[in-house]
Amino acid sequence: CGRKKVLIVYAHQEPKSLNGSLKTAAVKELTKQGCSVTVSDLYGMQFEPRATRKDITGDLHNPEQFNYGVESWEAYKNGRLSEDLIEEQRKVEEADLVIFQFPLYWFSMPAIMKGWLDRVFVQGFAHNFPQCYESGLLKNKLALLSFTTGGDQGMYSDDGVSGNIRYLLWPMQHGIMHFCGLSILAPHICFAPEYAPEEERAQMLTSWVERLKTIWEEEPIDCTPEWYYK
Amino acid sequence: CGRKKVLIVYAHQEPKSLNGSLKTAAVKELTKQGCSVTVSDLYGMQFEPRATRKDITGDLHNPEQFNYGVESWEAYKNGRLSEDLIEEQRKVEEADLVIFQFPLYWFSMPAIMKGWLDRVFVQGFAHNFPQCYESGLLKNKLALLSFTTGGDQGMYSDDGVSGNIRYLLWPMQHGIMHFCGLSILAPHICFAPEYAPEEERAQMLTSWVERLKTIWEEEPIDCTPEWYYK
Ligand SMILES: Cc1cc2nc3c(=O)[nH]c(=O)nc-3n(C[C@H](O)[C@H](O)[C@H](O)COP(=O)(O)OP(=O)(O)OC[C@H]3O[C@@H](n4cnc5c(N)ncnc54)[C@H](O)[C@@H]3O)c2cc1C
Ligand SMILES: Cc1cc2nc3c(=O)[nH]c(=O)nc-3n(C[C@H](O)[C@H](O)[C@H](O)COP(=O)(O)OP(=O)(O)OC[C@H]3O[C@@H](n4cnc5c(N)ncnc54)[C@H](O)[C@@H]3O)c2cc1C
Ligand SMILES: [Zn+2]
Ligand SMILES: [Zn+2]
Repeated sequence: CGRKKVLIVYAHQEPKSLNGSLKTAAVKELTKQGCSVTVSDLYGMQFEPRATRKDITGDLHNPEQFNYGVESWEAYKNGRLSEDLIEEQRKVEEADLVIFQFPLYWFSMPAIMKGWLDRVFVQGFAHNFPQCYESGLLKNKLALLSFTTGGDQGMYSDDGVSGNIRYLLWPMQHGIMHFCGLSILAPHICFAPEYAPEEERAQMLTSWVERLKTIWEEEPIDCTPEWYYK
Repeated sequence: CGRKKVLIVYAHQEPKSLNGSLKTAAVKELTKQGCSVTVSDLYGMQFEPRATRKDITGDLHNPEQFNYGVESWEAYKNGRLSEDLIEEQRKVEEADLVIFQFPLYWFSMPAIMKGWLDRVFVQGFAHNFPQCYESGLLKNKLALLSFTTGGDQGMYSDDGVSGNIRYLLWPMQHGIMHFCGLSILAPHICFAPEYAPEEERAQMLTSWVERLKTIWEEEPIDCTPEWYYK
């Protein structure tokens, strides 16, 4: 692993859940490899998902009319973002790889994790037009979405009611990660663990750990519309 | 309008924003038509976006291992969801049309609105497998996404860096609205108001009000992969 640093942004209420087990297994395997691993346990931290005036310490750039994007950008430049945001940005800055571990909620991430992105990936820190996509400010880092679903793989196939699973990856992988310059490793998806027999769930854990053993040799996906829609 | 009921779920921190103006213009126009209009002003209500144990009043179905989906479903059936959720569900139940008014945050809705959906569209209330898609529990209602962007229309075109805007509508319109049986009216998108001259912004308001005048005559979109990806 060569002293690589990994940040796991984790959103599940229950340590005994499959998401909890996947997170713990990743910490264990990556630590064993010699990586340094940090976890942001969002529910555990009671992380604030709402983007509000409280994210800016002190005076506003324009107190007459609150514009969150402008104010958080200005606050970033002046070191006046709230402490919780500065702390999360520090973790991102240090990381070589950011793993997002979550149960799929409404074809996307749970609100608490969406709020982490809304608030932490501030302009000036993660992007700064025209510094986006290939020149996004988080370039040279990797991102990986690791999530579980309720629907099974058939529902998320080309002919399934929920469409190819890649369709729902677009906003998260292209719109957020790629926009900020992150290179994207293939998503890791555990389909319908609640309806799987125990052995299959155990296998899900094993496969994830197996994959992590060679994660540093993986090539990022080609995050273009072709990858998503062929 | 014939006594139709409209719920506007609104997520902006600043009443003087373009989103605030679009919301106010909709309330005015629809009220003028004789509709009854309710607004859920999420930041104003300090709406809780995190899906946690607090959403269930009293004992849990399984206190040993917390499963949010199971617990909220059980709580719904037993009338034991928290008051704020019961109140929002009441508003949805009464509505013929639900308008979501928001600034695009990371190719999606702001976390506070995502949390409204994570917590309000509970199993048993909005869907109940196999009662989903055409037989979702909110069928006979309409949904409409009305949002503003930072990127311009060129960026969100087939050849633009951010891809066709329809790509990012899939999780919200198909994965949430269609899944719950809602019929979907074409989205209403105001591109890049922050960079538009005053007259153009005024025109954005006018167009929205004009559209609302005949909103009850509109046909829903055909919410299939073809609509999104041709
Ligand atoms: C608001 C909301 C929205 C949702 N939207 C969607 C959606 O859009 N699409 C969709 O497909 N699904 C959706 N779901 C379903 C959701 O994605 C699944 O419920 C979730 O992904 C299951 O993962 P979990 O970790 O919570 O499962 P859990 O129920 O915690 O885990 C499954 C089982 O694995 C067991 N387990 C834990 N650790 C281990 C281990 N080490 N070895 C073996 N077994 C273990 C647990 O004990 C449990 O029995 C939604 C759910 C909610 C609440
Ligand atoms: C966390 C975050 C993530 C984002 N992610 C994305 C993304 O993924 N993609 C993307 O495209 N953009 C993104 N943006 C940009 C965001 O979508 C825009 O900033 C937002 O949509 C602009 O709308 P607003 O209502 O906030 O604008 P405002 O700045 O409030 O409004 C624009 C102007 O309109 C004026 N105005 C208000 N009312 C009227 C009126 N009645 N007549 C005329 N003028 C009026 C206001 O005074 C203001 O000058 C993101 C922003 C943030 C903060
Ligand atoms: Zn991409
Ligand atoms: Zn659909």
